[in-house]
Amino acid sequence: MTAQNANLVCVVDKLASRRKAAEANLPGVHVSDNFSELLNDKTIDAIAIVTPVESHFSLAMACLKAGKHVWVEKPLAATSQEAERLLAEADRQGKLIHVDHTFVYTGAVRKLKELIDQDALGRLYYYDSIRVNLGLFTDDVDVLWDLAVHDISILSYLISTPPTAVSAQGVAHFEGRRANTAFMTLYYPDNFVAHINANWLSPIKIRQTLLAGEKKMAVYNDLDPVEKVKIFDSGVQMSGDKSEVYNTNVDYRVGDIWVPKLSIREALSLETEHFVDCIINNKKSETDGLAGLDTVRILEATSKSLAANGVPQEI
Amino acid sequence: MTAQNANLVCVVDKLASRRKAAEANLPGVHVSDNFSELLNDKTIDAIAIVTPVESHFSLAMACLKAGKHVWVEKPLAATSQEAERLLAEADRQGKLIHVDHTFVYTGAVRKLKELIDQDALGRLYYYDSIRVNLGLFTDDVDVLWDLAVHDISILSYLISTPPTAVSAQGVAHFEGRRANTAFMTLYYPDNFVAHINANWLSPIKIRQTLLAGEKKMAVYNDLDPVEKVKIFDSGVQMSGDKSEVYNTNVDYRVGDIWVPKLSIREALSLETEHFVDCIINNKKSETDGLAGLDTVRILEATSKSLAANGVPQEI
Amino acid sequence: MTAQNANLVCVVDKLASRRKAAEANLPGVHVSDNFSELLNDKTIDAIAIVTPVESHFSLAMACLKAGKHVWVEKPLAATSQEAERLLAEADRQGKLIHVDHTFVYTGAVRKLKELIDQDALGRLYYYDSIRVNLGLFTDDVDVLWDLAVHDISILSYLISTPPTAVSAQGVAHFEGRRANTAFMTLYYPDNFVAHINANWLSPIKIRQTLLAGEKKMAVYNDLDPVEKVKIFDSGVQMSGDKSEVYNTNVDYRVGDIWVPKLSIREALSLETEHFVDCIINNKKSETDGLAGLDTVRILEATSKSLAANGVPQEI
Amino acid sequence: MTAQNANLVCVVDKLASRRKAAEANLPGVHVSDNFSELLNDKTIDAIAIVTPVESHFSLAMACLKAGKHVWVEKPLAATSQEAERLLAEADRQGKLIHVDHTFVYTGAVRKLKELIDQDALGRLYYYDSIRVNLGLFTDDVDVLWDLAVHDISILSYLISTPPTAVSAQGVAHFEGRRANTAFMTLYYPDNFVAHINANWLSPIKIRQTLLAGEKKMAVYNDLDPVEKVKIFDSGVQMSGDKSEVYNTNVDYRVGDIWVPKLSIREALSLETEHFVDCIINNKKSETDGLAGLDTVRILEATSKSLAANGVPQEI
Repeated sequence: MTAQNANLVCVVDKLASRRKAAEANLPGVHVSDNFSELLNDKTIDAIAIVTPVESHFSLAMACLKAGKHVWVEKPLAATSQEAERLLAEADRQGKLIHVDHTFVYTGAVRKLKELIDQDALGRLYYYDSIRVNLGLFTDDVDVLWDLAVHDISILSYLISTPPTAVSAQGVAHFEGRRANTAFMTLYYPDNFVAHINANWLSPIKIRQTLLAGEKKMAVYNDLDPVEKVKIFDSGVQMSGDKSEVYNTNVDYRVGDIWVPKLSIREALSLETEHFVDCIINNKKSETDGLAGLDTVRILEATSKSLAANGVPQEI
Repeated sequence: MTAQNANLVCVVDKLASRRKAAEANLPGVHVSDNFSELLNDKTIDAIAIVTPVESHFSLAMACLKAGKHVWVEKPLAATSQEAERLLAEADRQGKLIHVDHTFVYTGAVRKLKELIDQDALGRLYYYDSIRVNLGLFTDDVDVLWDLAVHDISILSYLISTPPTAVSAQGVAHFEGRRANTAFMTLYYPDNFVAHINANWLSPIKIRQTLLAGEKKMAVYNDLDPVEKVKIFDSGVQMSGDKSEVYNTNVDYRVGDIWVPKLSIREALSLETEHFVDCIINNKKSETDGLAGLDTVRILEATSKSLAANGVPQEI
Repeated sequence: MTAQNANLVCVVDKLASRRKAAEANLPGVHVSDNFSELLNDKTIDAIAIVTPVESHFSLAMACLKAGKHVWVEKPLAATSQEAERLLAEADRQGKLIHVDHTFVYTGAVRKLKELIDQDALGRLYYYDSIRVNLGLFTDDVDVLWDLAVHDISILSYLISTPPTAVSAQGVAHFEGRRANTAFMTLYYPDNFVAHINANWLSPIKIRQTLLAGEKKMAVYNDLDPVEKVKIFDSGVQMSGDKSEVYNTNVDYRVGDIWVPKLSIREALSLETEHFVDCIINNKKSETDGLAGLDTVRILEATSKSLAANGVPQEI
Repeated sequence: MTAQNANLVCVVDKLASRRKAAEANLPGVHVSDNFSELLNDKTIDAIAIVTPVESHFSLAMACLKAGKHVWVEKPLAATSQEAERLLAEADRQGKLIHVDHTFVYTGAVRKLKELIDQDALGRLYYYDSIRVNLGLFTDDVDVLWDLAVHDISILSYLISTPPTAVSAQGVAHFEGRRANTAFMTLYYPDNFVAHINANWLSPIKIRQTLLAGEKKMAVYNDLDPVEKVKIFDSGVQMSGDKSEVYNTNVDYRVGDIWVPKLSIREALSLETEHFVDCIINNKKSETDGLAGLDTVRILEATSKSLAANGVPQEI
């Protein structure tokens, strides 16, 4: 992680193999196995925490108490209580918490945000995302905390109003493992609904999101290198004349399709620049601690509903 | 609807326009607006009911009481109670109820059934189907009764054990209309789970189903004319060695893909032949009244759960 | 073939099986095995000839001499000399020759024509078409006369200036059969070039055409039901600054993509209406005898070049 | 370029910017602007030449005369005469010439070779490749020398017998530039034919090759990360019964499709290992000077035919 006005000075890793790789790839960067070196180094302003979820709280807290700004991998913490304590400490220290909600910094998601802000889509009906692949079975979180977290952070960026409740379902097919196949539905005001389908047991990798509005509808396929975001006219025909609606069926679609050019700047490059800019110019991060906390709160309620086979949980 | 050993002799329709079309396209077939003509015609053995759901019960009951075998559009009836009364009457009359669960007669679904019966997929993990498009807003049923019913009937054909509970979510975006965007999860014994995603508000038409098992996984894309069903090796790596699993990620897949040739016989042609065969040779239909009743029971429980924002309902 | 202001009154076919089918499907239409009945029937104004190529000349000539307008399957005739004699006879009789260049009446090709007429594509660079599939081995013509004829007729509709020369290559893999795999390149003024790739030995069916211009480029995939025609900005960077060009490589494309809505009217329905309109209102057909003659002339030169392994032939 | 048993010790580049990048990315590697340093360094056994085509001869010749093994970017040289002189010098010096025909080292091409060696495809009918994109307009070579060279080198690896003649067509749309849109057909014994379609003016990037044989047919789409190579049964029906052939049309295909798993090892990694192995164990490279010479000879004949608008040239 480097950016203008910032230098990478030190990497700390417990694993010897990763330290070796860091030394080979990052000439001139100090590599260590001792976390306290980071905390004690007065020349260090910010620390990025890229570790398993359960360690986020203790590491981030230590950084904040040492007066460092922190960049934390998603999700911010393992519980909302941990996240709240991190936010409180950041306030006390006057330091920044930036959560790595990477997708918020992609050209595709920023284009969708732009269209929503321009009211190009009109009143929003639903966000429907499928995020499945043959995945590694992580031990620390279930598939929703691992994959759906991306959609939840995208939603908190795109949709100004927070969800009111969630209903989730899931299955853990393997002894002693967490849910590997799960589904969640977020209820929002004004009948907007978001649905996320995630699993680690899919023969094919799918990263497709439908975002439907009254005026336009978007199809966002993150695996398509050329046509990631397509914009369609909405074909909803609420007039009495059903023949029209039949025609849209026959016709597959009702208007032109527009495939906007997206920024191809690497998300991580934009995100690191933003992080450094927030620190230097004392700005608020677009994916700050609060966004991180909201995401964790939603995931907590989701886990409760999943354990109850879909009984909705208020958020 | 014609088949060997059967003749279409009469068509009854309330709409003059449709009667006109029938006369033009079906030379030699008697066309009428009087339903009782069908019931009173002693030369007629079977009647197909292709009308809105709310009329299925009264029409089918009249046919059965008149001693006719009946073919009923899906779903069999508007309530399980209606369906049960139809089954009882069919028993009394010794007549056949055949429900038009068309997909059961497609080459794709029959291939999946064949693979399951051969245990080629191994222990089943999940069935995950998305069935969305720009649709006609029917007034009589919601989107699950209109579209998910296809998946429910496919499941009752593929999976021998019935589901134990359902959790459903949905939204009705338009005043006075039923849910047009909905999701449902069916819980089965042994951690098998089925998920169905259906809406009438999608910019693109999708008909894709994932069927994942311990040995093999199938992708069934009904819109692909050439590669409707693809069979993948399962990439689940539950061994301690995670590096393997990482490799499957890098590698996208773990083995060859097999795209079996499917029968291209038109489903309706196979289905009508089966219907006539069942009548003549007194056989049980593969989609008989019981299959129709099971489907309606599941849809009823689904509607209850949807109204309760996902509270699971036993089936 | 029916249309407003026209009635199908008689079908003539040598094959008993096809006559049987015609009788079943066309109630009220006289079916016969005697071609002269068509010629002698004074109530008949126009005759459609849908037969093997070698029979087009004698049948069409007989129709014209009998004072009938003719619709002829593509290609118009087996030689340009035959085609010229048909045109001369049509002039003498004041009757219409319409050649069934069906693609000219599709929404996709008409959209391309519209874009060219508006100079939306700018100066045209090339037309590049691939038209392959697992095909029936016809005995009467080779694969270029069978498949490339579609592209040649599309080109004569789209491009105002005729080609000046052709170079063709092909292979006949099977004893005593004509070329089943072939390629042809048409040279036009101002460095416009057209390339057509056709075969009957492809494992997959492809119907894709690239039409590239200085301002915009079109991709026409006739097998895509939803996005048949896509319009791209042209990415040609002739400025000295190569970095720009490198960027377009990295970026895949240089601007938005536009997928225009196309008319979904069936081509044959539009074509028959046009045919009848030309007869009744004495208009010139968009695919008249002259277009048919040009196509046959190009195919003749193409066959010469193919026999000479690519030696170019002037047209 | 590194591999087991080999170390990268020195990089020479005329451009200061590239030398700077090399220094940053290759810690411990000596970076220089003086080519003679490479020649004079006795510890250097092999030199890789990655420069514009016109410089290949003089640089490679200097390396060989200095007793170094050489790795040369494709094409080996600008003329067959240059290539022949390099081969002669390599013989004299007992040194290796390895040409960077990278695709020969991909999992996809090696799988095709394996299928051909096993006679799994049967008698080969054709190789048909399209290799188009929005490209950089290089000044030193035309589009066939830049892109078709890949297919020519793949063909020389896959097909044991060399082509006998070539017919090529092309257009240079821009003042003072070489052909940017071109087509070539290679004639082989026994009616095998290869066709290559290449341009730098395509709105979409295509890398698709059809390889058709009597038993099986392969579709190789290099842009598909998951299904690069698909194997189809051949649908050729030469029996008298055309109805079968019609059926294959209706049916799209005649048998199962098989998508073999490919090695995902990076081609360049396999190629460098092979290069070092050839040097250490005195083996013949799979893409040696002779393969490089054959490719240049074919390109020379191709340019002659292109200049003559397709007049075939013997090879």
